Amino acid sequence: MACAVFPPEEFEARVSQTQGRMARVGIEALLLTTDADIRYFTGFLTRFWESPTRPWFLVLPAEGKPIAVIPSIGAPLMRRTWLDDIRTWRAPNYDDDGVSLLVDTLGSVTSKDGMIGLPGGNGTHLRMPVQDWARVRALLPGRRFGDDKGLMAAQRMVKSEAEVRAIAKTCAIANRAFDRVPEVATAGVPLSEVFRRFQILCLEEGADWVPYLAGGAGQGGYRDVISPADDRPLAVGDVLMLDTGLICDGYFCDFDRNFSVGPASNKVKSGHARLIEATQAAYQAARPGQTAADLFNVMDDILTVGQGGSDAGRLGHGVGLQLTEPPSLIAEDHTVLAPGMVLTLEPGIDMDDGQIMVHEENIVIRDAGAEWLSAPSGAWIRTLTA
Amino acid sequence: MACAVFPPEEFEARVSQTQGRMARVGIEALLLTTDADIRYFTGFLTRFWESPTRPWFLVLPAEGKPIAVIPSIGAPLMRRTWLDDIRTWRAPNYDDDGVSLLVDTLGSVTSKDGMIGLPGGNGTHLRMPVQDWARVRALLPGRRFGDDKGLMAAQRMVKSEAEVRAIAKTCAIANRAFDRVPEVATAGVPLSEVFRRFQILCLEEGADWVPYLAGGAGQGGYRDVISPADDRPLAVGDVLMLDTGLICDGYFCDFDRNFSVGPASNKVKSGHARLIEATQAAYQAARPGQTAADLFNVMDDILTVGQGGSDAGRLGHGVGLQLTEPPSLIAEDHTVLAPGMVLTLEPGIDMDDGQIMVHEENIVIRDAGAEWLSAPSGAWIRTLTA
Repeated sequence: MACAVFPPEEFEARVSQTQGRMARVGIEALLLTTDADIRYFTGFLTRFWESPTRPWFLVLPAEGKPIAVIPSIGAPLMRRTWLDDIRTWRAPNYDDDGVSLLVDTLGSVTSKDGMIGLPGGNGTHLRMPVQDWARVRALLPGRRFGDDKGLMAAQRMVKSEAEVRAIAKTCAIANRAFDRVPEVATAGVPLSEVFRRFQILCLEEGADWVPYLAGGAGQGGYRDVISPADDRPLAVGDVLMLDTGLICDGYFCDFDRNFSVGPASNKVKSGHARLIEATQAAYQAARPGQTAADLFNVMDDILTVGQGGSDAGRLGHGVGLQLTEPPSLIAEDHTVLAPGMVLTLEPGIDMDDGQIMVHEENIVIRDAGAEWLSAPSGAWIRTLTA
Repeated sequence: MACAVFPPEEFEARVSQTQGRMARVGIEALLLTTDADIRYFTGFLTRFWESPTRPWFLVLPAEGKPIAVIPSIGAPLMRRTWLDDIRTWRAPNYDDDGVSLLVDTLGSVTSKDGMIGLPGGNGTHLRMPVQDWARVRALLPGRRFGDDKGLMAAQRMVKSEAEVRAIAKTCAIANRAFDRVPEVATAGVPLSEVFRRFQILCLEEGADWVPYLAGGAGQGGYRDVISPADDRPLAVGDVLMLDTGLICDGYFCDFDRNFSVGPASNKVKSGHARLIEATQAAYQAARPGQTAADLFNVMDDILTVGQGGSDAGRLGHGVGLQLTEPPSLIAEDHTVLAPGMVLTLEPGIDMDDGQIMVHEENIVIRDAGAEWLSAPSGAWIRTLTA
């Protein structure tokens, strides 16, 4: 299967909900510049974002369909979406890399002193050169530019059923790949080779691509959860952790699994059991009306006896078009859980000598409580051949 | 093999060259926020950039080592680099996501009216929330903030021998994967499955991961070069193109290959031969003293009889820490080629019915001329089993 094409009704619903939010906060147009925000309203799916050269713009007016303002290299693909108004320039253009076309477009859909909103807050950025951004503002002197007051984050946080199905499909692929880890990871295999083979398993099981894999391996734990692999061979007594975000139909999963190479020590066994206990407690607590902070606190009570977490900074987050999305499961995030939110539960604990262990599952919030999207791990850590 | 760790001398040389450039244009400190710019001075290699949640900062003062201002989740990995000064905060922090720590750091290494430079120009962006960027400037009222006058682009454009070796190694992996395409692509195999299997070949041949794969397949050509795969099975008469940017040791290659499913038509044969002719002409022309525009013109003379190119916008570009880097092979880019520059040559032609064909190779500029990094394709298009 390749990328799913949502029906136009899916995008119409997203646009109409967002335009309702815009009206309520007085934003006349939204300016979007990133893969996830542009894809959310268009279905425009490409790996070409890996190239930083060209800026891409989507303008969402107060009414009607979004307008694409994009490099001409993207026109054939954008024409296959539900959009009607696709404005292009030949990029790169060192004199005017889409600036005047964007200014014309923003000018035509806003009033002279209208407010143009940009996604703001944690985890956002404006994907265009800072000088060009200054030129856009200078060329629209009457307009006000401001952050979108969390509008895009709030809108994207609650997934449609089509989105939940896409994420569930990606989770199922990762489930199957994790089940096959014993085929590729045994004592003596270098960690870098385990990483390579695990990515092959993800592709064999149906991933379109594997944007993210991190993890670690070490005696009784690992240093962190963001390192690439080194060439050290797996050894008996190692805990191996693999954390993947793979893509199918344009949607991510994000969860991990821990394995013991040979028999696990009592310390590792009890550490893993505690991680699962924290995950299960958060799963039980996760229902509409509870907050992101509530889930953090439920887990932190078990992990650090309520001391407030670790250097990782949070115990889970949203997932969807991006590997990590709002909300963050931290004590300061008071986002109220609502049906359709897809979250990771990601408790971590400190082991000996600065080592850690981290576990992660994916859930969706439903009316009556949480539902697993990943196949939840049992309390016992799986063992690999010594 | 996992990621190569360059010796500290490599990073010292990069820092000292850059500080020389900074002194010449009056920049007291550089502020860097993206994967490639931060990695260039530190060797900090992680796939965690896939998560947009946390900002990361590197401050390069006028003298001495760079200073990392990063989320605490990255501290263990950053401590393994050659840096001494690593300042961390627990992110995400909704009140102060590194802003005050960054302000203190910038303030401590610049004079009261000093100039702080940011990478500017084509292909750049500032990876932090726009509101936080405004706060940083407001908290350093005397300082001037400006673009770096192309300093980082110029510095990174000329690769060290260690970098050229890393890119050559990545190219060799892609060469081997492309040689094996007949194993995975024959008539009847859906394009999405070809993409999946080709990524497996890249991993089997030694890629650490495959950040980029695009391409297309269609009768006598394809629509564009940025689309993801669809599920249509390959058919006799199709031209299949695969364009990959894979990573080994943190460095990209970026080249493509075309294949004919069954015998190629005369039109496809001659189209492919013309692409190779253009590539070879640019290869012969590529030597120190020539410009990026010269290479564009040499190819465009063959492709469009000098009409000035197509919607793709350019006929090649730099490659290294990123899939695409400056310069761009366009008529307006007057970058003078210098030994150590690594470039792609990427000519494209129009076929029937809005279809195109694109070819791409990777070269490095040496004192006496160009050297191939990819194993250059012959004029005859390769044939896959019908």
